[in-house]
Amino acid sequence: MEEFAKFRHQLARPIEDKIRELQRHDRLKHMIFGSQLSPEILEKLRRNADMIRNMARSRQGNDRLRQLLPHKRAMLYFTQPSTRTFLSFMAACQILGITCNEVRNPETSSEVKRESRMDSIRMFSSYFDVIVMRSKISDFAECCSYMMNELENQEMRAIPIVNAGSGSDEHPTQALLDMYTILRTFDFDETSASARSRLGRLKEKYSDLKPGPAGKTYLFCGDIGRGRTVRSLAATLAQYPGVRMFFVAPAHEVLKLDAEMKDRLDHQGVDIYEFTSLDAKLDGDPILSQADCVYMTRIQREHNSKETEEQIANIDLAPFKLTPDRVNTLKDYAPIMHPFPRDSVVGEIPTEIDSDPRAMYFRQARNGMWARAALLVHLFDAVDSLYLAYHDVFGRAQD
Amino acid sequence: MEEFAKFRHQLARPIEDKIRELQRHDRLKHMIFGSQLSPEILEKLRRNADMIRNMARSRQGNDRLRQLLPHKRAMLYFTQPSTRTFLSFMAACQILGITCNEVRNPETSSEVKRESRMDSIRMFSSYFDVIVMRSKISDFAECCSYMMNELENQEMRAIPIVNAGSGSDEHPTQALLDMYTILRTFDFDETSASARSRLGRLKEKYSDLKPGPAGKTYLFCGDIGRGRTVRSLAATLAQYPGVRMFFVAPAHEVLKLDAEMKDRLDHQGVDIYEFTSLDAKLDGDPILSQADCVYMTRIQREHNSKETEEQIANIDLAPFKLTPDRVNTLKDYAPIMHPFPRDSVVGEIPTEIDSDPRAMYFRQARNGMWARAALLVHLFDAVDSLYLAYHDVFGRAQD
Amino acid sequence: MEEFAKFRHQLARPIEDKIRELQRHDRLKHMIFGSQLSPEILEKLRRNADMIRNMARSRQGNDRLRQLLPHKRAMLYFTQPSTRTFLSFMAACQILGITCNEVRNPETSSEVKRESRMDSIRMFSSYFDVIVMRSKISDFAECCSYMMNELENQEMRAIPIVNAGSGSDEHPTQALLDMYTILRTFDFDETSASARSRLGRLKEKYSDLKPGPAGKTYLFCGDIGRGRTVRSLAATLAQYPGVRMFFVAPAHEVLKLDAEMKDRLDHQGVDIYEFTSLDAKLDGDPILSQADCVYMTRIQREHNSKETEEQIANIDLAPFKLTPDRVNTLKDYAPIMHPFPRDSVVGEIPTEIDSDPRAMYFRQARNGMWARAALLVHLFDAVDSLYLAYHDVFGRAQD
Repeated sequence: MEEFAKFRHQLARPIEDKIRELQRHDRLKHMIFGSQLSPEILEKLRRNADMIRNMARSRQGNDRLRQLLPHKRAMLYFTQPSTRTFLSFMAACQILGITCNEVRNPETSSEVKRESRMDSIRMFSSYFDVIVMRSKISDFAECCSYMMNELENQEMRAIPIVNAGSGSDEHPTQALLDMYTILRTFDFDETSASARSRLGRLKEKYSDLKPGPAGKTYLFCGDIGRGRTVRSLAATLAQYPGVRMFFVAPAHEVLKLDAEMKDRLDHQGVDIYEFTSLDAKLDGDPILSQADCVYMTRIQREHNSKETEEQIANIDLAPFKLTPDRVNTLKDYAPIMHPFPRDSVVGEIPTEIDSDPRAMYFRQARNGMWARAALLVHLFDAVDSLYLAYHDVFGRAQD
Repeated sequence: MEEFAKFRHQLARPIEDKIRELQRHDRLKHMIFGSQLSPEILEKLRRNADMIRNMARSRQGNDRLRQLLPHKRAMLYFTQPSTRTFLSFMAACQILGITCNEVRNPETSSEVKRESRMDSIRMFSSYFDVIVMRSKISDFAECCSYMMNELENQEMRAIPIVNAGSGSDEHPTQALLDMYTILRTFDFDETSASARSRLGRLKEKYSDLKPGPAGKTYLFCGDIGRGRTVRSLAATLAQYPGVRMFFVAPAHEVLKLDAEMKDRLDHQGVDIYEFTSLDAKLDGDPILSQADCVYMTRIQREHNSKETEEQIANIDLAPFKLTPDRVNTLKDYAPIMHPFPRDSVVGEIPTEIDSDPRAMYFRQARNGMWARAALLVHLFDAVDSLYLAYHDVFGRAQD
Repeated sequence: MEEFAKFRHQLARPIEDKIRELQRHDRLKHMIFGSQLSPEILEKLRRNADMIRNMARSRQGNDRLRQLLPHKRAMLYFTQPSTRTFLSFMAACQILGITCNEVRNPETSSEVKRESRMDSIRMFSSYFDVIVMRSKISDFAECCSYMMNELENQEMRAIPIVNAGSGSDEHPTQALLDMYTILRTFDFDETSASARSRLGRLKEKYSDLKPGPAGKTYLFCGDIGRGRTVRSLAATLAQYPGVRMFFVAPAHEVLKLDAEMKDRLDHQGVDIYEFTSLDAKLDGDPILSQADCVYMTRIQREHNSKETEEQIANIDLAPFKLTPDRVNTLKDYAPIMHPFPRDSVVGEIPTEIDSDPRAMYFRQARNGMWARAALLVHLFDAVDSLYLAYHDVFGRAQD
């Protein structure tokens, strides 16, 4: 884009340099890339999210949460439609007392008046304290964060930028909520009292079981090739040692694991296996019985070319549906995840599964709200206040 | 609808069984049908509404009201457009400190992605604490309430559902606000001090006058056949003893009182009379001079078939206009109501009437706000807190 | 408009009579016309705005601000699209704790149902405590304020009306924020401590320099003929003595200073000069070096007829661009203003200028938020509470 020309050199840098510019010491200034989610950052955000979720259970806790950031005003700039992510951010803001404003119409009056996108964003930054943006334009959020850093260097007003989905590749807060769900599930620790006992009970059956995401097997099923949530989540999980990944997708160029991603994961030390059915076996055992976590996805239709669409329409999707029989073969603790929406026509997860205790997808959606609230507390550098509030409510800081 | 198939048996039950499922003891869990508004429930909601309205008069009272439910987040899911009902619910929420979120676009991205409606609603229930929904699909709100009850039975997160207008038949909160207006008007008690005296004064002229909706004559005029507000209100009023109803409508199949409704009201013991002009007489006296309450409606145009539209266009609507001369024949205390909007071209209520003290329609709209706030307090089981707050502000609970 | 017929006589009165009706003693009841912004009212609003902005710097100040009007609910009725003004009002409301509601779709369901506009507005006034309206219909806001006054006279509920842009002529809150920016700039007093010294330093170079808008030279450049912001601002500045104005516009009928406005300013005692290039000289000196304030505008395209558009497309706009060379000739203190959006294709202010300390346009946008908050405090008669809160935060009322 013409108007991003100014940031050409910054855009061309290796990701490590970019990540460094987006942090201040150990804290994120802007949330732009999934790869900013290091295990250290994830651990910080998980703690925030756990505190927020616990506080939100009581009226008193809720009241304290709304006292954290009521002086902040958020702009939700969603020129690419998204009900789910939008509402999740709205709810996250409201939990913290942040007031919300929105721009959702891609054809704003300003574009008619030939205002540059960067002028619009800077104008918003005059009125608001954080901009959460979702756009079809890949580099837009990234450039905005560079503009903010530049303003900060000139000692002018600058605010955090959050990428809520840009173009077809990055959707870092989805990776965040997926990781939060995984970290919680593999904590085996719903409430601290029953913690040991739950892990203890599970160990009777699964003797090697250890807490945490390391050393586990993740099964991804469905639209592997184009699912940006799969890409981001796999890349993030790959940071943990001893991880094995099963990719289950139709044998179609567009849907299966692409070479570039395979290389990258391989390079990160992941054990990768590809299958074309959920009923496949590895070393004689069904893959479903080996998975510690199942991540289902919808075969996307809205991005297809007409040609691809016809090809995909002819694929038998039965091998990629999580039927009750298949669910029965899963480990007792293996979470069933899905970034949602699920396809009610294809039915990759039939509604009968919804009442299975491992069905995590609605809780996963709700986790999005806690994880995004955790991120906002982090970006606004209000973690100290959160700890204080938590201590006031529960009589001790969370260990 | 395919996706409601699961609830087939529940949908087919008699209304009494449904109503029972929507309550817990004497409290509504969901607000779906006008027939949930029994005199007992109406009396509870009237008390709530009166307290809220009184508190809203002072800054201190307002502050206490906003402390009632600030930890709650509402989703206003209005896929059928409605400015008035929408804003009234927004305002009701804001009075109580509830934060609002909205979905107003019927073509959400999720539908493109073939998400089922029930998935959408369950997803919203992850983020929000009540869903107020207006939809063209008749059974949608009802099915959502059953889904919530099912989740509750499974000890999962469940929230109240409010029907803000579904399909062409149900609009229970409109009936609620109409009834609230009638209950207030026939209380003859604007402030407790001058209460007796006002009723006393009126009794000098209308010796039989008693407080309350029982034993009164209600005149409905305009679009009787298709006005869902008329249907709901008439059915609710029919619960009170000794009620007489005048229906004044053009002699057109589509506009006049339909046989089914007539039967139902008849069965409920209502004395029913039909007329084709506001100037009609009954037992020698003008019907307008006999009415205790006049409920005007707009002849709807947006639901007509082309054929019907032409027929209606040829009807002389003069006999259905509340001209100043006609207003002069009304009883001193008879409220003039209208669910609004009124038709500025037809002018079923000309603007000259607006300054008449009996013109109740703008206050009726404002009552919608109090009545809806009252309903939310009831659904969230916060009546105790409301009484406490009222007591703090006024030094005594309302008698 | 048919429905404004009722207000025919009021609409035809001289502006002085209108202004009187819109005030109560020395306070505005409604904000409809730019000419309501007398130097006295401007001074009051400037004080409010300065207090609000100072308080907004701290968490404590922010908390107190949100306690000023949390019991008020605003309706932002923007049937003419406007991102900027809309968001600025939203932010202003949020600063003061006011909850916001909006109608932004010109084709509301009510219009389909033939509701009159005045009925809509009166209905909104049932739910909300102020209506901020932007409409294509010139007299709409004015008529609404008369309706409110009429209701007030009948001792019925009435609320303030704010004109946020009506038709092509009035946009009083834009004039307000422009004036606030000018008043602040010519205060030469960023913080009270360094105040004298800044004016002192400037006086070494510009010996005649005095604080305040009187006696200064204002240069307006661009779309003089149709820019309603230029019209309003020039008319407001003309109230101060000894003012000189330079109008720099292409020599096109539609773009240059029109006769009527020229007459009016002339009548107000302004020294008027017209030029067709920013490089023009007056009395041998470049006009840019003589200006105390430069107000740039965008050549509007969206209002042009096809014919005019072609003519304007052929005009060389180079003489109306504020290039770095031209900026170098400006006085050290001369603010560069622009009502925004700027045209990114024409580039009347190139982005290189953005980091110049005199570039005021983004701060000007932010001033819009403070100025509008100041106006709301004034309209709600909450100035006393603002002073009290300011005193609590800073230990003294602002001098």
